[in-house]
Amino acid sequence: MFTPIKTPKVYDQVIEQIKLKIKSGELKKGDKLPSEREMSESLCVSRTSVREAIKALEVIGLIESRQGAGNFIKTNFDNSLFEPLSVMFMLQESSLKEMYDLRKTLELECGRLASKNIKDNELEHLSAILDRMYQSETEEESLELDIKFHYVIVKSARNVLLTNILEVISQLMDEFIRTSRMQILHTDNSREILLSMHEDLVKALKFRDEKAIQSAMEKHFDLIWKAYGY
Amino acid sequence: MFTPIKTPKVYDQVIEQIKLKIKSGELKKGDKLPSEREMSESLCVSRTSVREAIKALEVIGLIESRQGAGNFIKTNFDNSLFEPLSVMFMLQESSLKEMYDLRKTLELECGRLASKNIKDNELEHLSAILDRMYQSETEEESLELDIKFHYVIVKSARNVLLTNILEVISQLMDEFIRTSRMQILHTDNSREILLSMHEDLVKALKFRDEKAIQSAMEKHFDLIWKAYGY
Repeated sequence: MFTPIKTPKVYDQVIEQIKLKIKSGELKKGDKLPSEREMSESLCVSRTSVREAIKALEVIGLIESRQGAGNFIKTNFDNSLFEPLSVMFMLQESSLKEMYDLRKTLELECGRLASKNIKDNELEHLSAILDRMYQSETEEESLELDIKFHYVIVKSARNVLLTNILEVISQLMDEFIRTSRMQILHTDNSREILLSMHEDLVKALKFRDEKAIQSAMEKHFDLIWKAYGY
Repeated sequence: MFTPIKTPKVYDQVIEQIKLKIKSGELKKGDKLPSEREMSESLCVSRTSVREAIKALEVIGLIESRQGAGNFIKTNFDNSLFEPLSVMFMLQESSLKEMYDLRKTLELECGRLASKNIKDNELEHLSAILDRMYQSETEEESLELDIKFHYVIVKSARNVLLTNILEVISQLMDEFIRTSRMQILHTDNSREILLSMHEDLVKALKFRDEKAIQSAMEKHFDLIWKAYGY
């Protein structure tokens, strides 16, 4: 049998060139790309190939095409670049346990970094959210506050890579979190336990205590996992 | 001033539909997509829009288009889906410290999981690599063995998500690792220290000692970071 010969696709090579310019720092966020005509001339490829490459980079959210103005490297990625990541997660049929392990690891690290980098106004924000959690009367509102609470911690870790990856996993686990919260709330004293756990997190961050925040996070995640019935 | 009106692009909607079918499990790895004609009819969009969507999904490595046979969901992702991730890392201008923190966190978790999941033949493989590290005579060979060594640990953690994310970060940090290894090797007894650290890693895994592997990993990474001059 013959093995099919793989010819490198032209648009792939165009994309490769754009990526190289990003790697070298020649192209930065917000920069305008050369016109399609210029690119096709300097790369010695057809304008169709250039257009295919641009279109693909637009779809993955790296490039923004503005009517009449040209093509630009996006300044704000609003997670679109991570879309492929989340599709792959789904196709890999990753188990909930795999996601949970990864998420717990990243949240613990966020906690550790937050204990070093959190600012006073972020600490105040956390306390304010916690106060509202105590007063909250509906499950829907509590859940929203809970998510907000953890998001403040993640942001105050000040590591963009970590934040971005965590966001993708969180989206995937959204359903899981809703379910586990419901499970927790169906056991006795559950509301009090959850609130005191969040209290511990705020306290550890206030004292900028690396060990305390990690152990508080660990306890919190263990509860979540158990609540889910594992 | 008017704000430009954003019209959702047709190909985006086609991609959305394909993603939904993946989420619902209707489309799985290796599955064939309906023909472009069928898709354009059932989605009520032009064939051009379908083709643009397919092309974009091909570029990000989700779909494979086989001449004459049609379009298929890929079975093997060979990291292409993570390409956008690595481009984003570059555009975010993430600091080395950010990458290092993330990588250390993930490698420590890999160590922990590996201590639970590693198989006997993988342990033997690690010992064999370590033996060769002792005998290695060139820096190039040592580096290759070092990378292989860590890769076996990562694989034996048996968490695909973790492995994939770590691979992207490793590629980004490749240059960094080479440099730091050189720095380490330019200090006294460095070779012996590195070898004994790898020895500790193997020992901890053999005893399936979760705490020992994490502390050995931590020491190893601390050395790497210090060697880099921080």
